[in-house]
Amino acid sequence: MVHRIHNFSAGPCTLPLEILQEVEAEFVDYQDSGMSLIEMSHRGKHFEHVYQTAVRFARKVFQVPDNFSVLFLQGGATLQFSMVPMNLITEGMRAAYVNSGSWASGAIEDAKIYGNVYIAWDGKECNYFRMPLSEEINLQADTRYLHITSNETIGGIRFLDWPEVETPLVADMSSDYMSRRIPWERFDLVYGGVQKNLGPAGMAIVFIRDSALDNGNRNLGRYLRYDIHAKKDSMLNTPPVFPIYILSKILRWMDGLGGLEIIEKSSEEKAALLYSSIDNSGGYYRCPVQREYRSIMNVVFQLLTLELEKMFLDEAALNGLVNLKGHRSVGGCRASIYNAMPRSSVEVLVDFMQEFQATHST
Amino acid sequence: MVHRIHNFSAGPCTLPLEILQEVEAEFVDYQDSGMSLIEMSHRGKHFEHVYQTAVRFARKVFQVPDNFSVLFLQGGATLQFSMVPMNLITEGMRAAYVNSGSWASGAIEDAKIYGNVYIAWDGKECNYFRMPLSEEINLQADTRYLHITSNETIGGIRFLDWPEVETPLVADMSSDYMSRRIPWERFDLVYGGVQKNLGPAGMAIVFIRDSALDNGNRNLGRYLRYDIHAKKDSMLNTPPVFPIYILSKILRWMDGLGGLEIIEKSSEEKAALLYSSIDNSGGYYRCPVQREYRSIMNVVFQLLTLELEKMFLDEAALNGLVNLKGHRSVGGCRASIYNAMPRSSVEVLVDFMQEFQATHST
Repeated sequence: MVHRIHNFSAGPCTLPLEILQEVEAEFVDYQDSGMSLIEMSHRGKHFEHVYQTAVRFARKVFQVPDNFSVLFLQGGATLQFSMVPMNLITEGMRAAYVNSGSWASGAIEDAKIYGNVYIAWDGKECNYFRMPLSEEINLQADTRYLHITSNETIGGIRFLDWPEVETPLVADMSSDYMSRRIPWERFDLVYGGVQKNLGPAGMAIVFIRDSALDNGNRNLGRYLRYDIHAKKDSMLNTPPVFPIYILSKILRWMDGLGGLEIIEKSSEEKAALLYSSIDNSGGYYRCPVQREYRSIMNVVFQLLTLELEKMFLDEAALNGLVNLKGHRSVGGCRASIYNAMPRSSVEVLVDFMQEFQATHST
Repeated sequence: MVHRIHNFSAGPCTLPLEILQEVEAEFVDYQDSGMSLIEMSHRGKHFEHVYQTAVRFARKVFQVPDNFSVLFLQGGATLQFSMVPMNLITEGMRAAYVNSGSWASGAIEDAKIYGNVYIAWDGKECNYFRMPLSEEINLQADTRYLHITSNETIGGIRFLDWPEVETPLVADMSSDYMSRRIPWERFDLVYGGVQKNLGPAGMAIVFIRDSALDNGNRNLGRYLRYDIHAKKDSMLNTPPVFPIYILSKILRWMDGLGGLEIIEKSSEEKAALLYSSIDNSGGYYRCPVQREYRSIMNVVFQLLTLELEKMFLDEAALNGLVNLKGHRSVGGCRASIYNAMPRSSVEVLVDFMQEFQATHST
């Protein structure tokens, strides 16, 4: 019996045990080749197969239309904060950003360096505890794209409904990738790091509309150009072999589970279980996020005092429930329950929360 | 007994078997934590220790002075082709490049986008089969740095002696990292991908002089700024956890072997064995590179006809010697013998070459 803990880390995070065991079994001698996969040329037949599998299943489980390219890039979502405006904001155009919290702010700061950028809605006044309605988003003329952060990992909020605007959307989906259907027709580009819902750290997946590739800026270093990555099938240089390898397995596993709709349903159910436990605690636990914007990936909650919170985190850890501390910038508690987090772990957490409340109520 | 093959891939490439087995043994449950290391928060104590180990041993085995920072970045050497000029070429300054072949050309092309760049020596006329002497390098006034490629993976050439110039050096050492001493006093920056001598694909190590950090450009997206990475200890965003983990083990292994001098000696000996086998074949095998510039990492050689070369590669593969084909841009054969390539594998190759010659001579 393998020793497993309930790991609610915001990323890197829990991956499916069966995949970890698969990797372990083939790690030293990959498919009787006499080499580990991480020792192989990325131009060789074994990795070529891994890469093709990852692309094929990415297209399938994300339900990607044919007029989008799939890119596997290094530098995480953070490098995309620069690459998106560099590539997309062409002469005479500007870009709009929704400021929904910590990650959106990061994207905005970098984008300002590379183009004419404005904030179309700012969540600052409401302390980032909700997302905008479509009619609250103020778009100007000549706006190349509207950038949104579909889920804020730190604030624990998400867009329930995607903005209904004429301007093409660009989304950072790092923390809710493959947990919901993407309305591709509204998007020019979707990006996200894989280290939450899809694999180990060290890679971002970028989906980009072919017309956006054709019309992008070209006067950039080669690693920074989407069109070159697309032309070279993400092998302009040595790709991040290990993350692509794990990704290929996780996407196949997701496909085997039944694909996007099943995963979305399962995520909603896990989140509902946890939120109802919070909401039914008579105020012992409190979620600061407005109900319809609550993330189904990152469930943030607070206890009545900082002292209780500390006790809660300590006792949780003693019970094998770890990484429940909220981000240092906002405090409180946070349970990140990405795709590979089993429902059973959420149930253990809910039981623990009830026990803790029973023991520590006065 | 583990099934192992002799893998002469130019990268990714052979890694020490004992390290692969160590990773296998702790892959699913890392140090009895109930998690795989790739599932852990990069801010947690386990990864923190891995990261600190990697930095400590990098400083030790590379013999890095205190006034240099060590950065672990994504995007490989290719992203550095952009980041180096972006960060270093300040107002009114220019940068000099040695064009020594395929990789140098790539660096030059990208640098031209970000600054005033000129070629201080061009190996094109001699078909890139040697490096320049110091006195052949033509430097202009106001040159911020001279960029060299210490070893050309495709052409199989290297700088035997580092250029003696007043201008600070910048080197791409992707293919001979940790195989030779670096004269730090002449350098402002050294970079290289780790997927040849130091680990799996998906990371570059950048060593940068602190004064170069202080005087760099600031008007760049955050992932593209060396000063931010240095300030944040390479954890501006989620770092490439798995490559750092393997790197930490490989550096410790190198230290255990006896460090840089021992590795350099071992590399020279492996290369000498192979080159003497080529040179003593009576012209059956031929190395096109001028003797004093021959790479000790990538040994390129040709046979008399393309037909013989094909037979050689096919029979080698049948004998468990793989990835000996030269790069598609230059043809011929190439044996990449990086740090983790055992001497015994080079001996097997040498024996095979002699047998092949004996069997296929007319």
